[in-house]
Amino acid sequence: MTAKTIDLNADLGESFGHYTMGNDSAMLDIVTSANVACGFHGGDPEVMAETFRIAREKGVSVGSHPGFPDLWGFGRRVMPFTPAQIERIVAYQMGAAQALATYSGHRMTYMKTHGALGNLTERDPAVAEAIVNAVKAVDPNLPIMAIALSHLDRIGRERGLTVFSEIFADRAYTEDGHLVSRKEPGAVLHDADFAAARAVRMVQAGAIETISGKMLPTRIDTICVHGDNAESVDVARKVRAGFEAAGITLRALT
Amino acid sequence: MTAKTIDLNADLGESFGHYTMGNDSAMLDIVTSANVACGFHGGDPEVMAETFRIAREKGVSVGSHPGFPDLWGFGRRVMPFTPAQIERIVAYQMGAAQALATYSGHRMTYMKTHGALGNLTERDPAVAEAIVNAVKAVDPNLPIMAIALSHLDRIGRERGLTVFSEIFADRAYTEDGHLVSRKEPGAVLHDADFAAARAVRMVQAGAIETISGKMLPTRIDTICVHGDNAESVDVARKVRAGFEAAGITLRALT
Amino acid sequence: MTAKTIDLNADLGESFGHYTMGNDSAMLDIVTSANVACGFHGGDPEVMAETFRIAREKGVSVGSHPGFPDLWGFGRRVMPFTPAQIERIVAYQMGAAQALATYSGHRMTYMKTHGALGNLTERDPAVAEAIVNAVKAVDPNLPIMAIALSHLDRIGRERGLTVFSEIFADRAYTEDGHLVSRKEPGAVLHDADFAAARAVRMVQAGAIETISGKMLPTRIDTICVHGDNAESVDVARKVRAGFEAAGITLRALT
Amino acid sequence: MTAKTIDLNADLGESFGHYTMGNDSAMLDIVTSANVACGFHGGDPEVMAETFRIAREKGVSVGSHPGFPDLWGFGRRVMPFTPAQIERIVAYQMGAAQALATYSGHRMTYMKTHGALGNLTERDPAVAEAIVNAVKAVDPNLPIMAIALSHLDRIGRERGLTVFSEIFADRAYTEDGHLVSRKEPGAVLHDADFAAARAVRMVQAGAIETISGKMLPTRIDTICVHGDNAESVDVARKVRAGFEAAGITLRALT
Repeated sequence: MTAKTIDLNADLGESFGHYTMGNDSAMLDIVTSANVACGFHGGDPEVMAETFRIAREKGVSVGSHPGFPDLWGFGRRVMPFTPAQIERIVAYQMGAAQALATYSGHRMTYMKTHGALGNLTERDPAVAEAIVNAVKAVDPNLPIMAIALSHLDRIGRERGLTVFSEIFADRAYTEDGHLVSRKEPGAVLHDADFAAARAVRMVQAGAIETISGKMLPTRIDTICVHGDNAESVDVARKVRAGFEAAGITLRALT
Repeated sequence: MTAKTIDLNADLGESFGHYTMGNDSAMLDIVTSANVACGFHGGDPEVMAETFRIAREKGVSVGSHPGFPDLWGFGRRVMPFTPAQIERIVAYQMGAAQALATYSGHRMTYMKTHGALGNLTERDPAVAEAIVNAVKAVDPNLPIMAIALSHLDRIGRERGLTVFSEIFADRAYTEDGHLVSRKEPGAVLHDADFAAARAVRMVQAGAIETISGKMLPTRIDTICVHGDNAESVDVARKVRAGFEAAGITLRALT
Repeated sequence: MTAKTIDLNADLGESFGHYTMGNDSAMLDIVTSANVACGFHGGDPEVMAETFRIAREKGVSVGSHPGFPDLWGFGRRVMPFTPAQIERIVAYQMGAAQALATYSGHRMTYMKTHGALGNLTERDPAVAEAIVNAVKAVDPNLPIMAIALSHLDRIGRERGLTVFSEIFADRAYTEDGHLVSRKEPGAVLHDADFAAARAVRMVQAGAIETISGKMLPTRIDTICVHGDNAESVDVARKVRAGFEAAGITLRALT
Repeated sequence: MTAKTIDLNADLGESFGHYTMGNDSAMLDIVTSANVACGFHGGDPEVMAETFRIAREKGVSVGSHPGFPDLWGFGRRVMPFTPAQIERIVAYQMGAAQALATYSGHRMTYMKTHGALGNLTERDPAVAEAIVNAVKAVDPNLPIMAIALSHLDRIGRERGLTVFSEIFADRAYTEDGHLVSRKEPGAVLHDADFAAARAVRMVQAGAIETISGKMLPTRIDTICVHGDNAESVDVARKVRAGFEAAGITLRALT
């Protein structure tokens, strides 16, 4: 029997100047991979360099985390960019993050899109293509992290990228394995114990658990926990503890 | 007798969205190297990618051209950043430009700081150190372009970077070889013919010509012409023609 | 027989820092009303104050011209704001412009929405309501300028605002009196002589002339000419000359 | 014997989009006047409208609180603006805040400059003049809040503005009555009980208490408490309680 391993990732480095977002210090002791904001929806060069530095010290892998240029909306609004323009804003942010990771003595392990841009990669194949185009043009050996069962997951593999498939610890899934829209009731799981237990079930089964309890087999390389509020630290801790209790080893992506 | 060669550089890619700055199309037929704005004082991902693409097509070398985050002031105001913070904003911009150059199929040849940040590297050794720190941390083999006789020119060489020493075609020089402040009368040369003739004299002599006509021997690898207004295209053309008439070969930095 | 009068308006004050947009100086000698950008899609406090000052000197009426917060896209992209949020961004910009007009010794005559926000007021009644809400809350006696036959034109009147109905000198009209989308061929008229002659016909008839030449009677208080490129100065001059030759008096809104 | 009254003010409405600054809800139950950020160093139209609305409901007076355009530095860095440019950025922000206060059914009671801009009004008479120019041009009947003994306090009165003189509950004072620089140790008082007791002493005496305990008589209309972190809520509560225990009535400026 094979020992299970899983990566635990969170969006970090989202503070901006005097504005603090989440509790990065606590989260960097829990997760194994950090998706680092690149200054468009959150983060700034100071925050980025510091996040990479601390992640390196704690042995946490890092990915660049490009989003729409929308600090006001925190990257959670779909902004009017064409797929071709998205290629350029993603390439720009990948490069900026790469340089600051190198500056801080860390190495970039992957790229993951943020917020509304990430959601588009799930449902809009043209945006998924644009993300793959950007990565292949800028750094074709860099893996990407993609929402399991998304267009990006499929297209990334078809076009030869290394893809880490991702599920979410605190988000409900529809019967066909997609994220329940945040506009729907029950989209976000607030019960940390339930979320942790479900995360263990999904990783053990290698399947997404839908609202009705149906299990949809899929590849799972990493599980996302949120890091932008106090409750999420609690969820993250319980998810991690759940894995450890179940004998599932937390291991950073490489 | 050795054939003289010189590089001719200009600040380009400074447009922003619907706002056009200068005449990049004309300038890219004149210069041999383009300093490409990185989105902080000018430029945006669309403009950057397009400028790198056209430069590649025309065989023009490119450098990243980081400035202060000051679109309003076009990077010409000294902004309140510490040297350590300057390291991070320069690293960020270097990486963003590197990624978009790669995206557009071009390769980055050098880095040159813009406007007020560039002026600080001439007179403030702490800022010059910061620039060198950023380059050594992000891409230690990348050459930098530095104002001849500046702190950056000296410190860059002392710390092992390849440095291209730069003089200006349309700026007057003080008796000790520094740029006359733009606040002083006569700081900017408006007579294209005089500027072109002086440029040839300086390159032939390997010396900076001061206001009084004194020649200060110094290394000269490249000469800067401005590209942000209609008159500068005329200056640039005459400077280039002057070199060609004098048998000085225009050759891009590599 | 009543002497016809008409107001001629253009979007002005759209420069930003070192970035110049259009030829405000020339346009302010042609138009009778200036729609002044408020810093969100173009303009900055320096440009605004200066535009108000020159307009006052030249006897040109001014309106605040709020747009989406999108300098990169020049306010021409529909940004993801709810109608309620639009109320607040419009109120903010109205106030900022009011203060700078007062600062420059001028008085505000009207409000007109810009670009993509203006287009939404034509086809989305909820956005039209939001604009009316903002004006009624901030300055209920201030007239608005609305696209003739738009939802804003109708709703503004229903809710008691003074509305100046506006047609466009250089845009084609569909058979039901709406602007042909810029995505369609022929949406923008490039023949200044044709545009000027059509403008005179429309004002004389008190009707919108559609692509097929049908005349749709409607109230017309002002006609918009564009000011953001060199050609538009020529169109504006010919439109003005056309009115003068036809005995139609140019008169600023009050 | 006259009953003493005092106004208690704090900087509020400084959140930006998803980024929360301070605890406005708690502070609006403690203070009698709120200095509301205007979107340049903090705040946005949503936050501004909501802050004005809640202040109105709670009977808290409001002032516009313009700062440098520096969201990244939270308005705490001296930015390179001339006094004339400062007039325009202050006028712009005053107008924007005025419109949103009106929109939210509140009325503007005063104007107070923020952070580094506020500090300049203490020590740079040209900046103090610029602030007075802006207020006199935009709304000459609007009072200003000025640091006691500052150039702005003096110049504002000389030029006929109503001036509310302000002292700080948690900042140490030099022997000549100026704020100890934040770069000096002891500049900020962290002992809430000491700060509260000192505030009472200063208001009772009508004097600034210096580090050595010397009392410098001066006019005191309002006392500033900070609102941007959890500790400051505690300081604010204790200062308020101290006044109440001493029989000093908290009364909003009008």
